[in-house]
Amino acid sequence: MATTKTGQPLDRGTLDTLLRRRLFYTPSFEIYGGVSGLYDYGPPGCALQANIIDTWRKHFVLEEDMMEVDCTMLTPHEVLKTSGHVDKFADWMCKDPQSGEIFRADHLVEEVLEARLKGDKEARGIKVEEEEEGDKKKKKKKVKEIKAIKLDDEVVQEYEHVLAKIDNYDGKELGELIVKYNIVSPATGSPLEPPVSFNLMFKTAIGPSSNIPGYLRPETAQGQFLTFSKLYEFNNAKMPFASASIGKSFRNEISPKSGLLRVREFLMAEIEHFVDPNQKAHSRFHEVDGVTLRFLDRHIQQAGKTTLVIKTVGQAVAEGMVDNETLGYFLARIYLFLTELGVDPKKLRFRQHMPNEMAHYATDCWDAELLTSYGWIECVGCADRSAYDLTVHSKKTGQPLIVRETLETPIVWEEWDVDVDKKWMGPRFRKDAAKVQAAIDAIPQAEREILAAQQANGQPVKITVEDLGEIELEKVEIVKRKKQEFIREYIPNVIEPSFGIGRIFYSLIEHIFYTRPEDAARGVLAFPPKLAPTKVLIVPLSGNKEFDPIVDKIGRTMRKQGIANRVDNSSATIGKRYARNDELGTPFGVTVDFQTVKDGTVTLRERDSMKQVRSSVEEIVEVVKNIIEGKESWQQVLERLGEFQGQELEN
Amino acid sequence: MATTKTGQPLDRGTLDTLLRRRLFYTPSFEIYGGVSGLYDYGPPGCALQANIIDTWRKHFVLEEDMMEVDCTMLTPHEVLKTSGHVDKFADWMCKDPQSGEIFRADHLVEEVLEARLKGDKEARGIKVEEEEEGDKKKKKKKVKEIKAIKLDDEVVQEYEHVLAKIDNYDGKELGELIVKYNIVSPATGSPLEPPVSFNLMFKTAIGPSSNIPGYLRPETAQGQFLTFSKLYEFNNAKMPFASASIGKSFRNEISPKSGLLRVREFLMAEIEHFVDPNQKAHSRFHEVDGVTLRFLDRHIQQAGKTTLVIKTVGQAVAEGMVDNETLGYFLARIYLFLTELGVDPKKLRFRQHMPNEMAHYATDCWDAELLTSYGWIECVGCADRSAYDLTVHSKKTGQPLIVRETLETPIVWEEWDVDVDKKWMGPRFRKDAAKVQAAIDAIPQAEREILAAQQANGQPVKITVEDLGEIELEKVEIVKRKKQEFIREYIPNVIEPSFGIGRIFYSLIEHIFYTRPEDAARGVLAFPPKLAPTKVLIVPLSGNKEFDPIVDKIGRTMRKQGIANRVDNSSATIGKRYARNDELGTPFGVTVDFQTVKDGTVTLRERDSMKQVRSSVEEIVEVVKNIIEGKESWQQVLERLGEFQGQELEN
Repeated sequence: MATTKTGQPLDRGTLDTLLRRRLFYTPSFEIYGGVSGLYDYGPPGCALQANIIDTWRKHFVLEEDMMEVDCTMLTPHEVLKTSGHVDKFADWMCKDPQSGEIFRADHLVEEVLEARLKGDKEARGIKVEEEEEGDKKKKKKKVKEIKAIKLDDEVVQEYEHVLAKIDNYDGKELGELIVKYNIVSPATGSPLEPPVSFNLMFKTAIGPSSNIPGYLRPETAQGQFLTFSKLYEFNNAKMPFASASIGKSFRNEISPKSGLLRVREFLMAEIEHFVDPNQKAHSRFHEVDGVTLRFLDRHIQQAGKTTLVIKTVGQAVAEGMVDNETLGYFLARIYLFLTELGVDPKKLRFRQHMPNEMAHYATDCWDAELLTSYGWIECVGCADRSAYDLTVHSKKTGQPLIVRETLETPIVWEEWDVDVDKKWMGPRFRKDAAKVQAAIDAIPQAEREILAAQQANGQPVKITVEDLGEIELEKVEIVKRKKQEFIREYIPNVIEPSFGIGRIFYSLIEHIFYTRPEDAARGVLAFPPKLAPTKVLIVPLSGNKEFDPIVDKIGRTMRKQGIANRVDNSSATIGKRYARNDELGTPFGVTVDFQTVKDGTVTLRERDSMKQVRSSVEEIVEVVKNIIEGKESWQQVLERLGEFQGQELEN
Repeated sequence: MATTKTGQPLDRGTLDTLLRRRLFYTPSFEIYGGVSGLYDYGPPGCALQANIIDTWRKHFVLEEDMMEVDCTMLTPHEVLKTSGHVDKFADWMCKDPQSGEIFRADHLVEEVLEARLKGDKEARGIKVEEEEEGDKKKKKKKVKEIKAIKLDDEVVQEYEHVLAKIDNYDGKELGELIVKYNIVSPATGSPLEPPVSFNLMFKTAIGPSSNIPGYLRPETAQGQFLTFSKLYEFNNAKMPFASASIGKSFRNEISPKSGLLRVREFLMAEIEHFVDPNQKAHSRFHEVDGVTLRFLDRHIQQAGKTTLVIKTVGQAVAEGMVDNETLGYFLARIYLFLTELGVDPKKLRFRQHMPNEMAHYATDCWDAELLTSYGWIECVGCADRSAYDLTVHSKKTGQPLIVRETLETPIVWEEWDVDVDKKWMGPRFRKDAAKVQAAIDAIPQAEREILAAQQANGQPVKITVEDLGEIELEKVEIVKRKKQEFIREYIPNVIEPSFGIGRIFYSLIEHIFYTRPEDAARGVLAFPPKLAPTKVLIVPLSGNKEFDPIVDKIGRTMRKQGIANRVDNSSATIGKRYARNDELGTPFGVTVDFQTVKDGTVTLRERDSMKQVRSSVEEIVEVVKNIIEGKESWQQVLERLGEFQGQELEN
């Protein structure tokens, strides 16, 4: 069951109402009736998103000197055909021929069978547990009515088996399940048309008269792959290195639900770390090998369990649970990033993909999942994509996407050469000379060694050439020579940490939301100060005109220091204004009162403790700046300046 | 003629090669042959773009407490039909039926007539001046061959007349010009098909089975308009206020040319300032009224001239050249923003739109234009869009997009009421009662006054009602009453500063580019430190292993202070490494040498003066930070620390 930051049951409806009321997000085109799966971010949502991105850029791009690129969203057909998206980036959908309504086939089978199992339990008099029922699918439920009908024991088993592997069926199999279990349209009761594949990319045409078919990109990765050679050169041809990209991607969901978690247009931040396939150690692994993570590996899942294994990344890599150091390094860095944002570490797990869940080319893949009222939600994927993408694009375009490594110690070996006297060869074989040369080149090393020994013994060297039969090579010499290679060529592997910013945005909010113990209706978003959309609310005690220039000046001083602030000089009570502010997650409130007019001091109130200090404007600005930059904690400030209890504000 | 920062002739080819070599930008999908009008930004371009955006956000959003929103790019048909884009966001194109090639009609007419005029000059023996010919259209030239053919004097005049108003022709007129002047396909010589309208929006379908036709947005503005009521409420129903949005927009150009200046996918930053139509004064206008701008107003243009008028914004508004204070305020703020980026103020002008150039609903519109090798380029538009957008969306959806203002002093007036005795009315007129009441309500004030006077004189009150003829109103009383109104409702006007980030990006680079006087092949991008993609290049003097930990530590110290830096430990000479760095526009270089190993000091080299100072790592980091934050200038640092001349670096 989902809980708030303080461990109370989380009511998603309450939170959602708060988020919309405070304009964190809002359905796009709402006055036109809206379009499902499209949302706009209002001012606090936009600022929160910008702060997440800023933290990400510092944590990854700046800290690790990654090469950020900004590639276009419009992508020609050819590129996505090669990457496999045109053929495989699809879901199966079924149409109700009577109403025209369209269902995503796997979701429909899942819901119908789950509903029947629930009805069976009811009929058997088993209480359906709250947690199991949950509200995981509250929003997307198509099956409204659950009938208490008892099923045969083997039917129950069969349904459970199907549900366990629901992600593995293709369209044909889903169609068979629909027929076999007599699944009909939940709306009209009509039989459904067989599942057809629906490609999830948005199609468009680039240029006049539709001359270049194209799509909106489904991920930012492809643009990064295509730029590989230029980035490699930009990096002075040194390996390994990483590119990174932040931008919108698109997925034309069949019927999007679940609010911000399944949308048609979303912000991604993706890293492509290019690495030598033979050398996946990471030079900074020692900095993170002691980080403890909660793992759900594939063996535990295959055993039908969800028990978490808690161990350090160092151990996980040493034991081979995580495939290599670079992958392990990024898992730890993802953990550090998410917890820096304010994610609850106890609601964060790393789930390994099952073999049949991964793309066929992937070596290993882990998802960072966050626990929310929708269940465990994949927020970051971290996959080893091997050399797949670079290989297919290189093959298609004929452009090498490779690394040429100068070897410090050249590879040295010996081999037998067959030296032919060209002056003899030409006249002797004429038009067949090339054919003979090819036959000579094809002599394996082992045979050359034998021939050399025979030659040393004075025996003739003979080979068989197609159409010519056996011939004697009178003027050849077979010698052993030392060979060296100074260059090694390889196609790099790619390790890809891929962040769904909107999913992190929403899950984080669930993690930091709580209600005041003294007032369950009063919601608080406890963003860490660095991440909060606005840092300070400036409230004049009343509408007295004397306060205006002071309020203006405080706002201006803070802006100069880069501290985002808002003034609330509405006529609501201070208590109400602070309540509004709690919902916006603003960590600090500065109150201007009559004392301020006299001596220039203001009070500073901290959101979570609701405690206050009082000092000069200059010192208060300094305090806020220090806390945002992590140089001082609120506790330290309280001790240093002493708690102020003069005002009665919470009325 | 375009010049470099130091006033030398600017060779665009050289600059362009530099920008591609250093990966500021690169054609998208180049290994697939590329798609015209689509470009990717590489690491320095991406960082520069991020720094421009960051400056913009601080300068506008944070400084003026604007409400930033992030709306979707996918937009349903209905919204863009209402806004007028479906019908009017189009260019005219002509097809060569022989080759299938497509031309933008106005551009083709322009080029052909210009080529003929040039040929005429040649035939008359007039030297075609360099400046006039320029390289303005070098890249997009379709007409390759200019034939020296003399034209009649009146034909020359006619051509010049057509060219002067080339932006004003519609498709039919362009078709007539093509026929009249016998303009054929420059490629094949074939006659062209008549111009047809080509809508410049990218079309797609949202949802399965194409159920919602939609487009990629052509501007970010529409999403902001649709959110107006929510933002107004979020702002505690106070006016005026501004929303802002940064994001990609799309324009399916017929045949994009001119590099980054005319692309199909581009980043915009747009502000929608909502204001009372009766009150366009701006509370902060006094802060900027002394800013001097270079204006090109519509009267001067209509007189066929391009003379700039230089005056303060305060004067321009006072004289009515700029329509109102809010518009003037933004022109000054745009100027301050662009010059903060490093734009050359002498290459920046504000050009007013001619009446026939503006959208029919706009009140006034000014473009901030930057002078580049492509001529004067519109980089920021600043239009007063009046109440147009809010009005059409409100009308279409039936949702009020209005401001309800509580009046401080209510509007007071007197009027005559006709009070009817209902108990008499019903029985007297029965089913006709409503009709009689309507007739009473319709009596104009002037007539009521006459009727009141008659009644006072004891005369009967009579009116004529349709179908009933004249009737007497026996039981009515006509009285004068005082009325008050406390609420005023209005649809706000919108003032829209709209920034093309890619155009600013490119034009800025032309303004700050120069070559070293001692070596014309050595290009320098003189970004202001705050804007530079990377702030510091760290160069170890040689490959000596002793330098590695020191280099690492300097990099780490700078990163902690948020200073973006790169290490160049390649084997190139220090001089070559600095030259590479000049091209990346990095303002500082830190050199680690054997002295560093002994006493921990490093040298700091400034890009433009190429002078150095030497001090401890701590002090050097502090110096860099101070300069980036504008707290100290390089000149001050030189004076304080003294110039260091020990090393010979420029080899």
